[in-house]
Amino acid sequence: MQSVSHVKVKRGMSLSALVREMEQVKVLGPGRFGKAAKILGEMFSDDDYCNFISLAGPIIPGGLRKLVTDLIDQKLIDAVVATGANVTHDMLEGLGHRHIVGSEMLDDAALRRRGLSRIYDLLVKQKAIVDLERTAHRMLNRIPEQKRRNIASYELLWEFGRQLTDRNSFLKTAEKRGVPIFCPGIFDSMLGLDLWTYSQLNQLIINPFKDFSKLVDMTFGAKLVGAVILGGGMPKHHVLVANSYRGGLDAAIQITLDRPEGGGASGAPLEEAISWGKIKSKDKLVTITGDAITIFPILTLAAMDIART
Amino acid sequence: MQSVSHVKVKRGMSLSALVREMEQVKVLGPGRFGKAAKILGEMFSDDDYCNFISLAGPIIPGGLRKLVTDLIDQKLIDAVVATGANVTHDMLEGLGHRHIVGSEMLDDAALRRRGLSRIYDLLVKQKAIVDLERTAHRMLNRIPEQKRRNIASYELLWEFGRQLTDRNSFLKTAEKRGVPIFCPGIFDSMLGLDLWTYSQLNQLIINPFKDFSKLVDMTFGAKLVGAVILGGGMPKHHVLVANSYRGGLDAAIQITLDRPEGGGASGAPLEEAISWGKIKSKDKLVTITGDAITIFPILTLAAMDIART
Amino acid sequence: MQSVSHVKVKRGMSLSALVREMEQVKVLGPGRFGKAAKILGEMFSDDDYCNFISLAGPIIPGGLRKLVTDLIDQKLIDAVVATGANVTHDMLEGLGHRHIVGSEMLDDAALRRRGLSRIYDLLVKQKAIVDLERTAHRMLNRIPEQKRRNIASYELLWEFGRQLTDRNSFLKTAEKRGVPIFCPGIFDSMLGLDLWTYSQLNQLIINPFKDFSKLVDMTFGAKLVGAVILGGGMPKHHVLVANSYRGGLDAAIQITLDRPEGGGASGAPLEEAISWGKIKSKDKLVTITGDAITIFPILTLAAMDIART
Amino acid sequence: MQSVSHVKVKRGMSLSALVREMEQVKVLGPGRFGKAAKILGEMFSDDDYCNFISLAGPIIPGGLRKLVTDLIDQKLIDAVVATGANVTHDMLEGLGHRHIVGSEMLDDAALRRRGLSRIYDLLVKQKAIVDLERTAHRMLNRIPEQKRRNIASYELLWEFGRQLTDRNSFLKTAEKRGVPIFCPGIFDSMLGLDLWTYSQLNQLIINPFKDFSKLVDMTFGAKLVGAVILGGGMPKHHVLVANSYRGGLDAAIQITLDRPEGGGASGAPLEEAISWGKIKSKDKLVTITGDAITIFPILTLAAMDIART
Repeated sequence: MQSVSHVKVKRGMSLSALVREMEQVKVLGPGRFGKAAKILGEMFSDDDYCNFISLAGPIIPGGLRKLVTDLIDQKLIDAVVATGANVTHDMLEGLGHRHIVGSEMLDDAALRRRGLSRIYDLLVKQKAIVDLERTAHRMLNRIPEQKRRNIASYELLWEFGRQLTDRNSFLKTAEKRGVPIFCPGIFDSMLGLDLWTYSQLNQLIINPFKDFSKLVDMTFGAKLVGAVILGGGMPKHHVLVANSYRGGLDAAIQITLDRPEGGGASGAPLEEAISWGKIKSKDKLVTITGDAITIFPILTLAAMDIART
Repeated sequence: MQSVSHVKVKRGMSLSALVREMEQVKVLGPGRFGKAAKILGEMFSDDDYCNFISLAGPIIPGGLRKLVTDLIDQKLIDAVVATGANVTHDMLEGLGHRHIVGSEMLDDAALRRRGLSRIYDLLVKQKAIVDLERTAHRMLNRIPEQKRRNIASYELLWEFGRQLTDRNSFLKTAEKRGVPIFCPGIFDSMLGLDLWTYSQLNQLIINPFKDFSKLVDMTFGAKLVGAVILGGGMPKHHVLVANSYRGGLDAAIQITLDRPEGGGASGAPLEEAISWGKIKSKDKLVTITGDAITIFPILTLAAMDIART
Repeated sequence: MQSVSHVKVKRGMSLSALVREMEQVKVLGPGRFGKAAKILGEMFSDDDYCNFISLAGPIIPGGLRKLVTDLIDQKLIDAVVATGANVTHDMLEGLGHRHIVGSEMLDDAALRRRGLSRIYDLLVKQKAIVDLERTAHRMLNRIPEQKRRNIASYELLWEFGRQLTDRNSFLKTAEKRGVPIFCPGIFDSMLGLDLWTYSQLNQLIINPFKDFSKLVDMTFGAKLVGAVILGGGMPKHHVLVANSYRGGLDAAIQITLDRPEGGGASGAPLEEAISWGKIKSKDKLVTITGDAITIFPILTLAAMDIART
Repeated sequence: MQSVSHVKVKRGMSLSALVREMEQVKVLGPGRFGKAAKILGEMFSDDDYCNFISLAGPIIPGGLRKLVTDLIDQKLIDAVVATGANVTHDMLEGLGHRHIVGSEMLDDAALRRRGLSRIYDLLVKQKAIVDLERTAHRMLNRIPEQKRRNIASYELLWEFGRQLTDRNSFLKTAEKRGVPIFCPGIFDSMLGLDLWTYSQLNQLIINPFKDFSKLVDMTFGAKLVGAVILGGGMPKHHVLVANSYRGGLDAAIQITLDRPEGGGASGAPLEEAISWGKIKSKDKLVTITGDAITIFPILTLAAMDIART
């Protein structure tokens, strides 16, 4: 029987030293956080890993846009599965618009009248969203009609990435690095509405089956596949399901505040995915109960330091 | 200043009488539950309402399949937005397979070896999933190739519904009643995998833009639009966003265990949607913090009784 | 292997009929709700049961004051373990003050200036709290000094109950019916502050050991002990721990939104208590993930109807 | 209108540098984490602060025992309000017993038979608990009977701390440093049972009013009072209420997974406490939605580095 160790915090110690202390706790939150850092460190340092990241919730508008971009740029992430909203908000910033500091206590009807829309305590100008429609249509016009007849979401997003000039854009960087961004729910977002309005007068058919073929090819081609699952939703499930054809993920980290009791996929513990053949074993798998936008940057810094050593 | 009332529970009283007591509390959970029952009662009794329901989490496998089917059959629900998983599980039962009572404490690797997959404390046989693939392919073959070239998800699901014989199927009943079932994430489910394997050797392009056009047409054509939002995810957001073109929903009820602090759409209070123009005002809108599969049948019974009086 | 059944909701059916349908689901939320109603029905109808209820969170101010009072009056509940806050709010209403309907979006500094204090969307006047201090001191003066030297919380609350005139008070009704109200955290409440100020100039020593002796005596004397655990906190733990001397509770229902991952007692599944000898077996034990103030009145009505049949 | 900044993570950067990046996000989780680190840094570096910490949930057994001990030893914490369980588990380790690494999936009836009790995925031997009773009684015998007639919990815990020899014990260190540990719910714990059994044959009256007088004196005497609130429960409320007499806390950080919608004090946002006069203003107050045992060591390291600069 193993004993629980206690964390020692010393002024000036490195984060990775603290995380090693946390790993030794072996139980509860500290144990899981320590294990997650170790798994992520391995995913970052072992070249055999093909690493997926799934983005649900306001990861991009909520402060992690540069971080995601840098991970792609450094080839620490090989594929992204994102909600339409995260793609939308990358494009908004890519066009020069900014997200605004608000409060969760603001009156929504008053915001509406002022032309502002709210995501918890963060605001977006409706003007920016109008500008996005205009620009998205212009960008679509530059894609050859032949290509628009049957395009995958990752191909479309590469086209958009190519046309953006903002180096902090994860769409742009992904295109530059050849990293696919899959967006199975692209239809269900502000950008999705712009694609739909475009499709009413122009040729545009987005074919998710093309995405899925690419996704499955990537997982088949890889020696090892790892996944960082931020939040739940379709991006989480999509990463898992794409790996079922190869017998499951080799390693996976999930950070979420969703809970399991309701039976939804978002809050399900990763262990459940073993019974579906989507993850191989429970050795390299951990769920952190927490806010992904808060935890992920800290975990990344720890894992980078672990990967280096 | 209004005072908080206290609930009186009497042996033998009707649920709707209790719910009226709860409404009078006006604060906290009871107040919100009472308000939700009243709004739902109005949606059920006022013919001007076009009612949407969104299904995320294991609503169909978790015991509410008949309930959803009956609401469609009685035309209390005019449109459904479902996850691919809920459609998948309706088809599984429609083909004669059953969901099995398990436990959340079972070992997932052992379940895998026994050919069982887990959703919290509910199990599915992998054999049933293999059977679904075969049957889905057979059903697809019966759809004219011309139609398969550019088909909406709701059209595809009507085709499947028509071919099912189980009267408890919500797909079948929806087809019979002309109620569209939108499935923006159909690709991301067990059934979605079957569609993808089919598309590798056969003509099949599912076009979500066709779905969205139908969806927007329905919201535009309606005098009033109401929504019952069970769980979060893409179905929730999709119902909201489809109503932004008409200036927002007139009434909406949400039941979810997701929380707002992370900023994700699933846990966001419905008030936030006002700032996006997706809901009209906060008068007819309420969020119940709870498990949708538990709360919704109770709320429905209360609302039916309220609607009758 | 048992199959999952589906709920049938029919206009005009009784709540207990619906709950029986839910019980047959056997999994997820409906299964747990159905099981809870059955257990509670048994606790209400079998005279061998000595029933405890624990109250944490705003049960009394939030609309369930009459319900708790009636359960005590009908001898369906034999002992209460409450937070100091629930006792405080019963006394406030017992003195004629009312809880006020507010909103969770109000500005707290502005409320402070207006003499109002907030519990989520419910308000209390500071004046009422000042009046409580004055009245509590007057009531304490009427208790013989000899008794005040070493008094249990349940004895003190019987003294207060005797002096209240409001028939809706659960303190008054408990005194009338000889039902003890244990308040292990009485010190930690508004009323607790009044007791402390009184003790600075007068004789008053509250001795929780006397409470615990009474509590253990009750559990020892009973053939069967059942518990309804609303929320977590000290009241939950106290009911559990008091039953460890007799080998554990025979039946227990818990309704809470707290979650287990952090390891706190409030969110722990009741199963954990088996390993501590505080509950006998998992046959008659169920946790409902939900809001206690919303769920409990519905569950009570269902259980009353089940108990009758 | 302020813009949201994006976090930059660089291999080898210090945690405090990362936290400054997070603070600049200003919204959602990263903004709150950054603000919390800044407030804690100020509480650690400004000698005018009298710092309270409240401990609810398995803080001590779950890996933070050394951390709490060190903070007391370095006089960064001036007073503790703990649950009885945290005191119990400090004594268990102080007597040489260890907490054991388990799993949340273990069968509780089987654990019971093996003499093990469970806290989520952490185990305790029942033998250790039996030993605690014997030792606690022996320690109590060494306290003069006169003192035992009317003793505060903090006085009792200083007596225990003095008799412990383990330098990692926070009870021992607190006694050495003259830091009071208040335990308003000491009765409601394993140690509490031992105190009760002792009181059946020996003189022992624990008087929480004496604790509260000491607590209020400390808050009155301080220029500034800050609070670190780990988890909710009675310890949280007790720190808040004790500061109402001085017009409220000057700074406060809360880390919890409890949610506000049910209206319980544990999940309430700290803002609510402003309306009760328990916190002065919202400038130096922040709630982190997360697991306290995971977040607090990281926050402490960041704050120590901020305090140094």
